Amino acid sequence: MRNDTFLKALLRQPTPYTPIWIMRQAGRYLPEYNATRKKAGSFLALAKSPELACEVTLQPLERFALDAAIIFSDILTVPDAMGLGLYFVEGEGPKFERPVREEADIARLDVPDLEKLRYVFDAIALTRKNLKGKVPLIGFSGSPFTLACYMIEGGGSDDFRRVKSMLYARPDLLHRILRINAQAVIAYLNAQIAAGAQAVQIFDTWGGTLSDAAFREFSLAYSMQVLAGIGHDPQGAHVPRILFTKGGGQWLEAMAGSGADALGIDWTTDLGDARHRVGSRVALQGNMDPMALFGTPATIEAEARRILGRFGEGPGHVFNLGHGISQFTSPEHVHALVEAVHSHSAGKNPA
Amino acid sequence: MRNDTFLKALLRQPTPYTPIWIMRQAGRYLPEYNATRKKAGSFLALAKSPELACEVTLQPLERFALDAAIIFSDILTVPDAMGLGLYFVEGEGPKFERPVREEADIARLDVPDLEKLRYVFDAIALTRKNLKGKVPLIGFSGSPFTLACYMIEGGGSDDFRRVKSMLYARPDLLHRILRINAQAVIAYLNAQIAAGAQAVQIFDTWGGTLSDAAFREFSLAYSMQVLAGIGHDPQGAHVPRILFTKGGGQWLEAMAGSGADALGIDWTTDLGDARHRVGSRVALQGNMDPMALFGTPATIEAEARRILGRFGEGPGHVFNLGHGISQFTSPEHVHALVEAVHSHSAGKNPA
Repeated sequence: MRNDTFLKALLRQPTPYTPIWIMRQAGRYLPEYNATRKKAGSFLALAKSPELACEVTLQPLERFALDAAIIFSDILTVPDAMGLGLYFVEGEGPKFERPVREEADIARLDVPDLEKLRYVFDAIALTRKNLKGKVPLIGFSGSPFTLACYMIEGGGSDDFRRVKSMLYARPDLLHRILRINAQAVIAYLNAQIAAGAQAVQIFDTWGGTLSDAAFREFSLAYSMQVLAGIGHDPQGAHVPRILFTKGGGQWLEAMAGSGADALGIDWTTDLGDARHRVGSRVALQGNMDPMALFGTPATIEAEARRILGRFGEGPGHVFNLGHGISQFTSPEHVHALVEAVHSHSAGKNPA
Repeated sequence: MRNDTFLKALLRQPTPYTPIWIMRQAGRYLPEYNATRKKAGSFLALAKSPELACEVTLQPLERFALDAAIIFSDILTVPDAMGLGLYFVEGEGPKFERPVREEADIARLDVPDLEKLRYVFDAIALTRKNLKGKVPLIGFSGSPFTLACYMIEGGGSDDFRRVKSMLYARPDLLHRILRINAQAVIAYLNAQIAAGAQAVQIFDTWGGTLSDAAFREFSLAYSMQVLAGIGHDPQGAHVPRILFTKGGGQWLEAMAGSGADALGIDWTTDLGDARHRVGSRVALQGNMDPMALFGTPATIEAEARRILGRFGEGPGHVFNLGHGISQFTSPEHVHALVEAVHSHSAGKNPA
């Protein structure tokens, strides 16, 4: 591995500078991504082709000095493999043909055959080969709760009325879905690791929509099952795991005891406060507002410095945005961010 | 005043039970509201008719033993009076015909003539008269930042890209809008108080979308200007003021020093933790997930008891939802909530 700053920072080991990667770094803000997607014909065709998924995974690394790659995929591959029928409507986000709402649907639900997700593992193996040790490759999954949101709602939602109606009126049904999702995510992430993923991130995109009590019972408890079930890599080494709950800033103490090596945090949390609260238990990943990239190169640099300053001295910081990059972002502004993070953190965490 | 439990709780004085009102309690979940709205012809015609606004304000009090009324209006009346042209598209939320985006638009912006908001003050005066002292009447406004979000975006937004582009690239322009909004909101709330509002709430609906640093600079600082500018009622008495920032659970300590008597909190914050953090500085209002009303009467009662228990003994709690009630809520479930809050809190805060 030529650049292991990302893996070291996740384990709170010193690095010569603060590593950076960007959620959704392989995406629509890059013209070369849009060209490959056009070639694939659709988002799903792109995600299901190991060669094209590998191609777009590597694209941002050609442009920017990023310290990690993340396999190009979708968080909803697991419910798709369960038979729910994932599809995309342009401009509307993901949807399922067969959402899981009735008790009979839930009784039928089961952990999917991993062979149906072979395309993800093949993409990881191919990308590892083509990366040639340049930077580590991240695998990922949606959290059991976040998967359940899409599975029950049948798509995105403003209020999550269906999933919350089940949570409050029939918590037993939601718990059954979550148990199955947790088992499926464990198997899925372990297979990603077997294929070559060197770190894994759990995206708990919707845990932050829950009450404090419901978050602990329906989101965090199942993310913790997943974290407990993640095994070592083929060489027997520990695989760093990141837990990212959007809107989870109020629960960092609980998440610090989840078994994750690092917590992803969004931009609403002050990074200095977060570090004070979690102490030496976990590393922190984040946390610039993706919209800060709509400033000027000078204000982007200033915001990057401010965030580095809020984290302060010492190891354990992976720079990132607090959520996925917007499709309307200028690639030149991403370049300014990566350069600012590297130059202003150099020597801060001496190896 | 026959029932002053709400005003007393806001000032952390003992009450015989925990008072409750519900954000958006006069709204589409009530068939009688929909009938009046149909009679009015449109949402804006309803909001701009003092007689009809009074009528719908009083409707939920006929059904439920609520401890406060809130004047039926919209948070965007102030920018409408500034000349931005508020309109509503069915199912899409509020929009402005003339959003404020260019430097020249911002230079022209000014505090509106309060006569253009006379319909709000007339509705308050009429409602006070018709309430006959049954319960207190709440006035309200959007926060300077939340108004600016709609004024700049021209409507709702998923990412607030326009307002945040201005925030990061041209903060001077956003500060100018916010200064004018704060002056306008001060004049607006003081005129509501002169007309008869007995408490006021500032709805900072979008402050929670900001980074910690930006929240303090662009949202809280201007809400504090407003709070400092609110005067006494016509009898020279203090008018309790509530600051509600959706998604603001991480900033309660800062908000507790804002000059507000009470903080509205959404359902993501544990009420016991919140009380511990703000101490005796402010009362707390909240915080049931509006979606909990999609449970059963028994689970609604259990959730109400849980929240009352998290607040604990002693005065200073106004029960509410953590956000506006959903239009799909069953009125029978609201009845179950109000009864549960009153019966399970009786004697908890003895007068």
